[in-house]
Amino acid sequence: MEIRSVYYSSLIFWTVCFVWSIETHSVSPPNIILMLMDDMGWGDLGVFGEPSEETPHLDMMASQGMLFPDFYTANPLCSPSRAALLTGRLPIRNGFYTTNAHARNAYTPQEVVGGITNDEILLPELLKKQGYVSKIVGKWHLGHRKQHLPLEHGFDQFFGSPHCHFGPYNDIARPNIPVYNNSEMIGRYYEEFKINNKTGESDLTQMFLQEALDFISHQSTHQPFFLYWAPDATHDPVYASKQFLGRSQRGRYGDAVMELDHSVGKILAHLVDLSIEKNTFVFFTSDNGAALMSGPGKSGSNGPFLCGKETTFEGGMREPAIAWWPGRIPAGTVSYQLGTVMDLFTTSLALAGLNAPDDRIIDGLDLSSILFNKSLVERPVFYYRGNEMMAVRLGLYKAHYWTWTNSWEEFITGIDFCSGQEVPGVTNHTQQEHTMQPLIFHLGQDPGEKKPISVLSKEYLDVQTRIGTVVEKHKRTLVPGEPQLNMCDLAVMNWAPPGCEKLGKCLKAPPSNPWKCDWPH
Amino acid sequence: MEIRSVYYSSLIFWTVCFVWSIETHSVSPPNIILMLMDDMGWGDLGVFGEPSEETPHLDMMASQGMLFPDFYTANPLCSPSRAALLTGRLPIRNGFYTTNAHARNAYTPQEVVGGITNDEILLPELLKKQGYVSKIVGKWHLGHRKQHLPLEHGFDQFFGSPHCHFGPYNDIARPNIPVYNNSEMIGRYYEEFKINNKTGESDLTQMFLQEALDFISHQSTHQPFFLYWAPDATHDPVYASKQFLGRSQRGRYGDAVMELDHSVGKILAHLVDLSIEKNTFVFFTSDNGAALMSGPGKSGSNGPFLCGKETTFEGGMREPAIAWWPGRIPAGTVSYQLGTVMDLFTTSLALAGLNAPDDRIIDGLDLSSILFNKSLVERPVFYYRGNEMMAVRLGLYKAHYWTWTNSWEEFITGIDFCSGQEVPGVTNHTQQEHTMQPLIFHLGQDPGEKKPISVLSKEYLDVQTRIGTVVEKHKRTLVPGEPQLNMCDLAVMNWAPPGCEKLGKCLKAPPSNPWKCDWPH
Repeated sequence: MEIRSVYYSSLIFWTVCFVWSIETHSVSPPNIILMLMDDMGWGDLGVFGEPSEETPHLDMMASQGMLFPDFYTANPLCSPSRAALLTGRLPIRNGFYTTNAHARNAYTPQEVVGGITNDEILLPELLKKQGYVSKIVGKWHLGHRKQHLPLEHGFDQFFGSPHCHFGPYNDIARPNIPVYNNSEMIGRYYEEFKINNKTGESDLTQMFLQEALDFISHQSTHQPFFLYWAPDATHDPVYASKQFLGRSQRGRYGDAVMELDHSVGKILAHLVDLSIEKNTFVFFTSDNGAALMSGPGKSGSNGPFLCGKETTFEGGMREPAIAWWPGRIPAGTVSYQLGTVMDLFTTSLALAGLNAPDDRIIDGLDLSSILFNKSLVERPVFYYRGNEMMAVRLGLYKAHYWTWTNSWEEFITGIDFCSGQEVPGVTNHTQQEHTMQPLIFHLGQDPGEKKPISVLSKEYLDVQTRIGTVVEKHKRTLVPGEPQLNMCDLAVMNWAPPGCEKLGKCLKAPPSNPWKCDWPH
Repeated sequence: MEIRSVYYSSLIFWTVCFVWSIETHSVSPPNIILMLMDDMGWGDLGVFGEPSEETPHLDMMASQGMLFPDFYTANPLCSPSRAALLTGRLPIRNGFYTTNAHARNAYTPQEVVGGITNDEILLPELLKKQGYVSKIVGKWHLGHRKQHLPLEHGFDQFFGSPHCHFGPYNDIARPNIPVYNNSEMIGRYYEEFKINNKTGESDLTQMFLQEALDFISHQSTHQPFFLYWAPDATHDPVYASKQFLGRSQRGRYGDAVMELDHSVGKILAHLVDLSIEKNTFVFFTSDNGAALMSGPGKSGSNGPFLCGKETTFEGGMREPAIAWWPGRIPAGTVSYQLGTVMDLFTTSLALAGLNAPDDRIIDGLDLSSILFNKSLVERPVFYYRGNEMMAVRLGLYKAHYWTWTNSWEEFITGIDFCSGQEVPGVTNHTQQEHTMQPLIFHLGQDPGEKKPISVLSKEYLDVQTRIGTVVEKHKRTLVPGEPQLNMCDLAVMNWAPPGCEKLGKCLKAPPSNPWKCDWPH
């Protein structure tokens, strides 16, 4: 009798817990953490075959979550990729491109005048409606002038920088890049925030990690939260902190990967320690392919894929990607879904119980059913370079309408985006148009884009027709946004960011003298 | 009080279970299942990036077990690879090579006179000491004459064939390949055991699956057992059963992969259904790299690796590899250990509580501590082609002492082991010696072996010294075995295998006329 009564009490207890947990799921939107690496390549993960023992935590994250081998960025360069992630829209729509020349990659160096416009709606702006507190840690890269900064676009907190950590500069021709804490500069790279380009030592990743951990700790009692964690240690000049320098077998780049992997492990463990992992959606990916032009020790691996960053070959746009949510996303799954960084926008909204804006075209897909039910949805992936749709993937096929590595002028100076991987008729140094007869590859049989399918085959004709229909529809409905990355001006550089007075670090700007930015590739 | 007594009863019960389970572990050796694919490539697994949705069960197996991205065969061709697996020894030691010409891949077509000798000790012979019942299902390829067959070398049961399923032949110049059930032929490929080369249809994989399931069912009450499951559907001519034909997006080859993946899933599920999965060690791998020369639709993918089957570049010898043992091997781990098929010999013995023979050199490593404790052990990997040590890997470095794709004579007939992947100075059609100055690659930074490290660098000199020491020691202690694959004779072909009388399928052998086999590559 006593045993039976214990049994019944147990039963009632668990039933209550179960019902309560269902309730919790339906009423409380999850926390969202998007981890975006900088120039990290698909092939840098141990689970994808990198032998250098750098990513045990990411490998484990994959085994506890869902691995996406077919995940893409929206553009093979950082700023447009990041703008696409936060708006759910292709750069050609959200304005993160240039019309100064055909098919050029543009981004936001500090002389750029433009940035994200107020017409675009960013993910944290929408999440606010559901009570999310949002923070970006690391690299923003959507513009650095007051109106472009994160706090103007829905983020409640900002710790990091509007730009890449290039430098050091001399304060005369060019100021060093500012680091912000919320709305004010708290120092500059190479000044208060050290990066030793000679040794590769910098504590920035540790700092970005601590910011993330502190934010999560604080918000654990103020859920839901959105953390956009965008460290940039794997971007040339690559850096790592002292405890990681020299530890890898791939030089400084590998050290940086190890430190980032370690940090990812710390963040996931922190969620578990706080018992909020079952209410937190985490997604790990990168902004574009590995920067092969930086050479060994300074860049990563794109695995079997052709070329790298700056190109619309697979090596430029295929990204490592892992979704993690213990108890919700089935552990140890490999999803064959074609995904894009823009899906993170739409998926995050769906998880928060919000609809995407209906007054504009959103390119992101809600991945919920893929994440929770392992379903698959056919959808195209568009490969843009500036104002040109270079290629389209549908299913296992990819059709290139334009191909270009970079110009001969650049190439002969040693800039090579396809280092050691020239493929006759495929890679090239003059822009090549194939719109009448696209180069088509079967990525299942030829992941390295080395052997175009014969234009005389039935397979070619079938695919050309199928992808052609998709392209026609895409082009018919496409209304390009106003290009935001056309104009440059030395006067807009970070001479006197807000907060510089307190620090005594205001510099004098030269007179305004705008010009059309030169985007060489 | 009552609750407390229930608690104590529980405690005692679980303690007893725990102690009992420890006892069970130490006294009862586990069942062992080695799954060896034929010509399947590293890059064919979804978890390694193949986008064609063919391997959900293998992906799941990886997430429940340990994935080895750095696992190797012992030779880039089937027979020597399989002989190495079962003896734990390099082919140069166990005799599975030729001295008819330098650095040639030899195997066991039906005109070969030799096979595995009685001097070699095979895994099932040793396992018998611990009471294992052993079965091979599928392709043997260690010789087809009476003295070479599986039942003469420790296997208790044999269902499959001594050879590849080449054919159909005409019974006059060449008999069709026999299929054995234990010691007797029960039919021949293309006769009783249909393979339709035109449509690609064959039920062989289903048959091999059923044999495996039946054996497991029967042995579940007669443990421990050893199952060597070696289906060959992914070897050209590639086949699949009707229910899988046309289902993949990579042609017949992809169909075959799907059917094998499905079968792996069935076998693992069967272990779970029988509740013996916690006492069964399963290892999945392949015998050599994908056979790129067979072309798309007939061959697989080697991921980022150079060339394929027949070569000692990474694409010829890097294999997909997964260890699975729920509750014993930590789930979802990626191991960076360098492993080889010969380790399966030594590891299986260790799991069975047996020592490897101490009267000969064993090349296999006991992987137990890697499997159970995630430890890592530095060890070299030797890449042999026939009688020549072509290359050595140590850590992340690989030094090529000889390189060769295949001969010009072959190449101009269209036989290309590096299809679409010529790398100047690396791939070549005349045997190239580099023994004085090896070509050295850093596989972490350059998995595709495209950029040899400069011979002028300190890195080169360091590595050359380190690997040189390993090579010197290896060569100093190496006593090559008697080569078994030198002689051929049409008289030894499968004219009248045992059992042919009952079936009325004995054919007349021509008179003996032995010659030195010609191994062209």
